[in-house]
Amino acid sequence: MRFTLALGKGAIAASFMSMTSESSLHSEQPSEDDDRILAGYRLSIDNIDAALIHMLAERFRITQAVGQYKATASLPPADPDREQRQIGRLRKLAEEAHLDPEFSEKFLRFIIDEVIRHHEQARDDAS
Amino acid sequence: MRFTLALGKGAIAASFMSMTSESSLHSEQPSEDDDRILAGYRLSIDNIDAALIHMLAERFRITQAVGQYKATASLPPADPDREQRQIGRLRKLAEEAHLDPEFSEKFLRFIIDEVIRHHEQARDDAS
Repeated sequence: MRFTLALGKGAIAASFMSMTSESSLHSEQPSEDDDRILAGYRLSIDNIDAALIHMLAERFRITQAVGQYKATASLPPADPDREQRQIGRLRKLAEEAHLDPEFSEKFLRFIIDEVIRHHEQARDDAS
Repeated sequence: MRFTLALGKGAIAASFMSMTSESSLHSEQPSEDDDRILAGYRLSIDNIDAALIHMLAERFRITQAVGQYKATASLPPADPDREQRQIGRLRKLAEEAHLDPEFSEKFLRFIIDEVIRHHEQARDDAS
């Protein structure tokens, strides 16, 4: 029944998947590798994830430069005022993009925690 | 001493910041709003964050469609085999982009936890 829904885009997706899919014979769940609709969605997710990883790599390149600069200039690793402005801005952007603003805040907190960890390392390395 | 390092790009950054900066007179930390180098870095970070938020919004649009589809097709919300393949792929991409592979895995886990929460909601809504 699922295959009656497979359209052109899904068929292309499935042909891509067939080159890379791994066996799930050991699983008692129904095999999802043959599901063309799911495969199409997953190709889009994989493309977006590659973009996210590269954006994050660039973001950490910049924040590592910030960390080194803050360590040199004896500025504190964390900046609560700046963080509050960032949270407010990203919540607005999230709303406009129909992303849960709560999640956008959680996401920024997740990233900033990692950045602060880097900054503290840079400070410790400099001292 | 810090200002002797301010170059053209930093000066432009600082003029942007002056339009939007908030007072930090209440803080006992040295004011960072006037720091042109830091302001330049922060403009880049803000641009990247806007891109990240929009990529995440699109990713959740897709995973919400996946969640609805999985609920309709009675597929389980989580798929550990798929997650392992995603982790392996993103770790490789992270290495190529000079991003800490450990962080890329933590990031994907953070995102997937949110997605699974959405999928479970969709399943509960459908039942």
